[in-house]
Amino acid sequence: MTHRLLHFIAVAMILCMVSCNGKETATETKSYRIVGNTIVFDEPQRVEGQQSVLQLAVDPIDNVRIGFIGLGMRGPDAVDRMTYIDGVTVVALCDIEADRVEKVQTDILEAKGLPRAEAYVGRDAYKELCERDDIDLVYICTNWQTHVPMAVYAMQHGKHVAVEVPAATSIEECWQLVDVAEQTQRHCMMLENCCYDFFELTALNMAQQGLFGELIHGEGAYIHNLEPYWNEYYENWRLDFNQKHGGDVYPTHGLGPLCQAFNIHRGDRMKTLVAMTTPSINGKKLGKEKMGTEEFAEGDMQTTMIQTELGKTLLIEHNVYTPRPYNRLYQLTGTEGFANKYPIEGFTVKEENLPEELLPENHGSISPHGFAPAWLRDTLMSAYLPPIAKEIETKAKEVGGHGGMDFIMDYRLIYCLHHGLPLDEDVYDAAEWSCLGELSSASIENGGMPVSMPDFTRGDWQKVDGFHHAR
Amino acid sequence: MTHRLLHFIAVAMILCMVSCNGKETATETKSYRIVGNTIVFDEPQRVEGQQSVLQLAVDPIDNVRIGFIGLGMRGPDAVDRMTYIDGVTVVALCDIEADRVEKVQTDILEAKGLPRAEAYVGRDAYKELCERDDIDLVYICTNWQTHVPMAVYAMQHGKHVAVEVPAATSIEECWQLVDVAEQTQRHCMMLENCCYDFFELTALNMAQQGLFGELIHGEGAYIHNLEPYWNEYYENWRLDFNQKHGGDVYPTHGLGPLCQAFNIHRGDRMKTLVAMTTPSINGKKLGKEKMGTEEFAEGDMQTTMIQTELGKTLLIEHNVYTPRPYNRLYQLTGTEGFANKYPIEGFTVKEENLPEELLPENHGSISPHGFAPAWLRDTLMSAYLPPIAKEIETKAKEVGGHGGMDFIMDYRLIYCLHHGLPLDEDVYDAAEWSCLGELSSASIENGGMPVSMPDFTRGDWQKVDGFHHAR
Repeated sequence: MTHRLLHFIAVAMILCMVSCNGKETATETKSYRIVGNTIVFDEPQRVEGQQSVLQLAVDPIDNVRIGFIGLGMRGPDAVDRMTYIDGVTVVALCDIEADRVEKVQTDILEAKGLPRAEAYVGRDAYKELCERDDIDLVYICTNWQTHVPMAVYAMQHGKHVAVEVPAATSIEECWQLVDVAEQTQRHCMMLENCCYDFFELTALNMAQQGLFGELIHGEGAYIHNLEPYWNEYYENWRLDFNQKHGGDVYPTHGLGPLCQAFNIHRGDRMKTLVAMTTPSINGKKLGKEKMGTEEFAEGDMQTTMIQTELGKTLLIEHNVYTPRPYNRLYQLTGTEGFANKYPIEGFTVKEENLPEELLPENHGSISPHGFAPAWLRDTLMSAYLPPIAKEIETKAKEVGGHGGMDFIMDYRLIYCLHHGLPLDEDVYDAAEWSCLGELSSASIENGGMPVSMPDFTRGDWQKVDGFHHAR
Repeated sequence: MTHRLLHFIAVAMILCMVSCNGKETATETKSYRIVGNTIVFDEPQRVEGQQSVLQLAVDPIDNVRIGFIGLGMRGPDAVDRMTYIDGVTVVALCDIEADRVEKVQTDILEAKGLPRAEAYVGRDAYKELCERDDIDLVYICTNWQTHVPMAVYAMQHGKHVAVEVPAATSIEECWQLVDVAEQTQRHCMMLENCCYDFFELTALNMAQQGLFGELIHGEGAYIHNLEPYWNEYYENWRLDFNQKHGGDVYPTHGLGPLCQAFNIHRGDRMKTLVAMTTPSINGKKLGKEKMGTEEFAEGDMQTTMIQTELGKTLLIEHNVYTPRPYNRLYQLTGTEGFANKYPIEGFTVKEENLPEELLPENHGSISPHGFAPAWLRDTLMSAYLPPIAKEIETKAKEVGGHGGMDFIMDYRLIYCLHHGLPLDEDVYDAAEWSCLGELSSASIENGGMPVSMPDFTRGDWQKVDGFHHAR
C-alpha cells in the first residue's frame, strides 16, 4: 500500500466521522451545527465576574425615573399609562422624529399638568438618554431591530430596562441580553403584556391552585391579520424584517403566558422544538407591492411544537397575513381540566376540584366533557383573578391599553421596583420567548428537524420552584 | 503497515459509512430506517398484474347486497341506516356474540318487516360470510385490530369493502389494504363519517368555489374525553390497543376532511410529518385500574404536523384522556378566507369574493378580521351545502347517526355503487388517513424527527385533478 493511499484512507475516515457527527454541516452563514439529528446553537460560557440574575432583586426604588425611547406606535400610550402610577417620573423622551416627542410633551405631560421631560431627537440620541445619571429605567418601544442595541447600552450605563416584544431577533441577540444583564446585574424585562390579560391571569391562578390537575399541553398564537397596519411601521421596518426572516418572528404573545403556566426555567424548561411553515403567498404579494421584492422569507403561517424537559408539549402558531379572526389561542390542557380563550373563553373543570363555597345550592351539572356553564365561568373568573390584578382591576380598565392588561403590566413593573422584588418577567424569559424566531427558522430550513433549545439560565432552570408573582 | 491494521481501517470505514447512511439503525423490531435526518418506511413494489385503483369504477350494482361484520357499538346503527336506502339488501349478519346478531334481526330487520338475514356467529365466522357468492359489499364495524384481516379476506373473495376507522393500525397493514385492493380491483372504503358532516361538506364546497382563496393550512383533531366509554369496548380492545401503541392512534376524523379539502393524492400529497406527545398520566392510571399494567405507550395528548408536497401544512391533535369539550378542530386557513368548526362554527370571507345574489341590500359590514355575522354564516351554510347532501338532508337528519353525517356517508357509498362511480373515499385515503398512527409513533420515538410519509399511490398522486364527489 502506498503512502498516498494510506493518506486517502485516513482523510476519508476523518471526513466520514466528521459527517457522522454532523459538524461539517455548520457553514459560515449559519449560527448552528447539526449534531446527530438535531440542530444545536452554540451556548457561550459566562465570562469572569458575570453572575446569574435569576430572581434578581435590587434595592427598592421609591421613585422610578423613566426615560422612554420610541414614541411611534406603542410609546405614547406607555408614557400615558405611567402617569397614572404613583412614584413615577417621566424624565426623558426620545424618538427619531422631533414632532413625536413634542406631541407627547403637550398631549400627555402638559395636558396632565406634569413637567415637560428632557427631549432627545435623532437615531442615536437614545445613547445620550442612557448616559444620564438621573434615570432608573429605560423603557424601549422602538422597532424590533433596535431593541437589543438599546437595551444593552442602557444596562451598560446602569439602567434597568423594559423592552417591547420581541426583545431580541436572533439567538446571538438573546445571549447578548442575558450576558449584559448578568454582567451589569440590571433588570431586563420584556414587556409581554399578554401575561397580564384577565383571562390569562385567572387561568394561571386556577392552574397554580390545581384546578386543571397537572398541565400537559399548552397552545398559544399570534394570529392577527395586519392588512390595515402595514403602512404604519416607520420606514416599513416590520414588513422589511419579515421579508428577510423566516420562522415565527413574533412568538412572545402566545408563548409568554404559557411559559408562566408551565413554570419555564422555574422547574421545567423548553428542550426541543420543531417548526413548519406554509409557502409565502400573501406576504410575497405584499413585499412586491410595498418593497418591490420578488422573494419573501417568511411563509404566511408558521406552526411550532415544543417539548419540555418534563415531557409537556406547547404549540405556537403565527399568521399575520390571511383573513382570520384575531386569535392568541391561550389554551391549557391539564389532567383534570382545561382553559380556552379564543374564540370563546371557557373552562372545563371537575366538580370535586372546586371549593364548596363557590357552588350555589341546586347548581346544575358541571360536566368534564364540555365548557363550564356561564354562571360557573363567571364565578371562576371572579374568584381566581389573582390579587395582583384584583387590587388594580378598576383602574386598569379605566386607564386601558388593550383592555387593561398593559396597565397591569406597567403597574407590576413599577410595584416590583418600588418594593425591591424580582420582576415577573426576567431576562431569561425575554430570551426564551424571543428565541423562537431564529430557532423555528432553523427547523424550517432543515425540513422540520428538531432544534435543541438553548438553556439561557445555563443550568439553573430548576432552582426556582414554580412561577409566582412576587409580593 | 500490517495486513491486520489495513483490515481494521477498512472495517472501520465500512461501519462508519453504514452509520452515516443510518442503515444500521433499522433493527428487527422497527419497520423503518433512518436515512440522513429522516425516518423512512419501506415502500413495497407492485406485484405483477397488480394495478392502480385510482378512480376505480366497477359496473353499476342495482341492488347492493350487504354482509355486516361486527354488531357491537357501530354495527347495529349501520344496519338500521341501510334499511332506509332503496336498492340495498341486508343479506348476512356476523358477530362473536349470538345475542347481538339476534337483537339486530328482531329489533331492526323484523321490526321493519324485512326478512331475517343469514346469521354468522363466532370469531372466525366472518370468513364464511365473505365466502358467500350473493354478497356485493362487506361492511366491517369490528375492533381496529381485525379490520385489515377481514377487509383483505373479503376482497380476496371478490367483495367490495367498507370498513370503520381507522382502516389499518400499521404501515404494513396500510400497504396490505392497498395491495389487495389493487390485486383484486375491489373498492375498499374507510367509513370516515366526519367527511360528511354538514359544516365540513359546506366548507369543502366553499373552498372548492374559491371563497377561501388558496388553502395553506388546515387543522383537525380527535379530542374526546372517553372516560364514560372505556368499559364498553369488547374485551377492552381499545384501551388495550392504546396501552401498547404510542402516537396518534385515532387520526382519521381530523385528517380525513382536511385531506379532501387539500386534494391529497389528487394533486398534492402528504410528504413529511413530525409528532410529539405528552407523558401518559391519565392513560397510565386507566391502564393500571383496568388492566393492571404499569406502563402505557400512548401519551395523554399527541400533536402532529404534516407538510405537503406543495408546502401546505396540516396540524392533527389527539387526546381521549383529559376533561375537555369534544373537538375535531376542522379549521381551514386560506389566503382569502377561513373556516372554523369548534368550539363555534364560523367563516371569515371577503365581501368581494361573495356572489352578489347572496348579499341583501344594506347588509352590515363583512370584516376580514372577524367571523362573518350570523346572517351571513347561515346564508353560506345553506348556499354552499353541496348537492350530494342537499338532496338527502332532510332524510339524513331524520335517520340520524351523529346528526345525519353517518347516513349521508352510507347513502353516498350506495349511490356510487348503484351508478358505477368511483367512491368518495378510496383505499389510498384509507391508507393515508390511517398511517398517522405508526408514523407519528416513529417520530415521537426519535425525539420529533421528520418522517417521510409513504406514497400509497406509488407516484400517481398528481393524476387526478382535485377532489370531487362523483356524480
